[in-house]
Amino acid sequence: MNMDAYEASVLAANRLKREAVHTPLVRSDLLDEQLGGRLLVKAENLQRTGSFKFRGAYNKIAGLDVATRNRGVVTYSSGNHGQAVALAARLFGISATVVMPRDAPGVKVENTRRYGAEIVLYDRASESREAIGEEICARTGATIVPPFDDPDVMAGQGTIALEIIEQMGDDLSSVDAILAGASGGGLMAGIAAVCEMRAPHVAIHPVEPENFDDLCRSLSCGERQRNEHSVGSICDALLGATPGVLPFSVLRRRAMHGYTVSDVEVRAAMLQAFRHLRLVLEPGGAAALAAVLSGKFPLYGRTVVVVASGGNVDETLFQQLFETTP
Amino acid sequence: MNMDAYEASVLAANRLKREAVHTPLVRSDLLDEQLGGRLLVKAENLQRTGSFKFRGAYNKIAGLDVATRNRGVVTYSSGNHGQAVALAARLFGISATVVMPRDAPGVKVENTRRYGAEIVLYDRASESREAIGEEICARTGATIVPPFDDPDVMAGQGTIALEIIEQMGDDLSSVDAILAGASGGGLMAGIAAVCEMRAPHVAIHPVEPENFDDLCRSLSCGERQRNEHSVGSICDALLGATPGVLPFSVLRRRAMHGYTVSDVEVRAAMLQAFRHLRLVLEPGGAAALAAVLSGKFPLYGRTVVVVASGGNVDETLFQQLFETTP
Repeated sequence: MNMDAYEASVLAANRLKREAVHTPLVRSDLLDEQLGGRLLVKAENLQRTGSFKFRGAYNKIAGLDVATRNRGVVTYSSGNHGQAVALAARLFGISATVVMPRDAPGVKVENTRRYGAEIVLYDRASESREAIGEEICARTGATIVPPFDDPDVMAGQGTIALEIIEQMGDDLSSVDAILAGASGGGLMAGIAAVCEMRAPHVAIHPVEPENFDDLCRSLSCGERQRNEHSVGSICDALLGATPGVLPFSVLRRRAMHGYTVSDVEVRAAMLQAFRHLRLVLEPGGAAALAAVLSGKFPLYGRTVVVVASGGNVDETLFQQLFETTP
Repeated sequence: MNMDAYEASVLAANRLKREAVHTPLVRSDLLDEQLGGRLLVKAENLQRTGSFKFRGAYNKIAGLDVATRNRGVVTYSSGNHGQAVALAARLFGISATVVMPRDAPGVKVENTRRYGAEIVLYDRASESREAIGEEICARTGATIVPPFDDPDVMAGQGTIALEIIEQMGDDLSSVDAILAGASGGGLMAGIAAVCEMRAPHVAIHPVEPENFDDLCRSLSCGERQRNEHSVGSICDALLGATPGVLPFSVLRRRAMHGYTVSDVEVRAAMLQAFRHLRLVLEPGGAAALAAVLSGKFPLYGRTVVVVASGGNVDETLFQQLFETTP
């Protein structure tokens, strides 16, 4: 299974080679000095469509047989996965339908439409996005591109770890940990599967918003837990109710400690990313960085890679950083 | 001379391999669709110290013999080159003095100090930064690291073109042009020397702020021209009085057309970089992008690489983008 997951990421990297941005490991000498360690930020906000989700979506669609693919794809998404599926579908010349929550950030809905997808809005409190998606597939013959609970999607996200390994080169042995935001766990699982084969010394830590720590709690008790709430964090990309079955089956095998961050810590991390990394991050994309900058995961004496997973942020929220954050 | 300049960039790339960020070519599918071409943004705002200047400064200091280097370095800079020299000096464990204009952005002065350099402020209207720098060198035995008029500095900046060539791979033949902001011309000349050897089909265009188009005018008439003003553009990094002797000797050999951009166009480009590229750019770092987004250099039907040369922007100026730009 593990070897399979690793090989699937290598295949995904090959498919993505000409399509995805090879995102840099960005660093700030001033932050490093202040924190007494070495922080490397994998800037997936610079990925096409503004988040890492393009990797998994493209890889999934690339892996469909041509007849199936030509009947189109459907997905459900708070925004970043939807944009990714919309663009990937367009690159293959097929149709895409994206089921999005009514409270998704306007910029994400608008951009998904501009990438050429048809949008279906739903209410997160009362409707099931999975059910809506399945109904569309039954009617049209389209294929679901799941946001995380799928081996090809996970393999696509795992290409981030392959790039980190390549970018570190001889210096890989110095990497102590990789931190990334977690919702369904697809990104974490893709990274974990690759690191298990190629960098088993690297600790992997998921980071979640306070009150949306389903993965942290699931890892503690060994069974998938659910969040009580569906709203109440600025990290709109990280509000999934429970870890995916497949990602959790990968993640639970490995002793792994998760961290949670508050909205205040996330805002502070977004401002530091602006100031010291010159990166525009959305709240969910800054969660892992917030775990380090808040000191919850101390950088001191360590080399840590943080995945900055997305940059699709509403402008009013971004402006508020300058007014309200110290 | 050309072969020498090219070889010097290859040597610089080797020196920088473990020290500089390998910055990505960032793209926006939405901008490309809107403009009908392919725009690739070389994100040098993600370089260490927040601008491409680290490349030239590090390469120059790396090339000094040890005894000379240990007597320290001195430079003059509106900010980005100063920060770059300060960090590069620290990496070699030597002292650095940076002569900066009193009206340089506060963030640049403060950061230069934090990288460990000693700061000497001067008045741009009444004092000569070169004279101040030479006086310090005469007194201390330190070496000047010129901001642009130096073969090793130019060779360091030329590594940007080597990276672009490597990143484009088989697709290099599709690149029509490279645009970059110009002040002393060191970046332009470094790029031009590399492209002459490795990508002679690529057109090279400097972009300057309105009223600070000394290089554009110099290229038109074949002799180095001076700007009338020393203040009056938000592009604080691009206000040099006249092209460097050495950069101009490289650039004049090649038929080359320059473009100028207004402050309004630069602000609009900074906002588009925030929205569509998730990059924080300073005004001078957005000048080349502004030439494309304003339509002065039309993207339609072309593949164009724009160098986003820096991201050290004052926060109040950045905030104003959201209030005043359409």
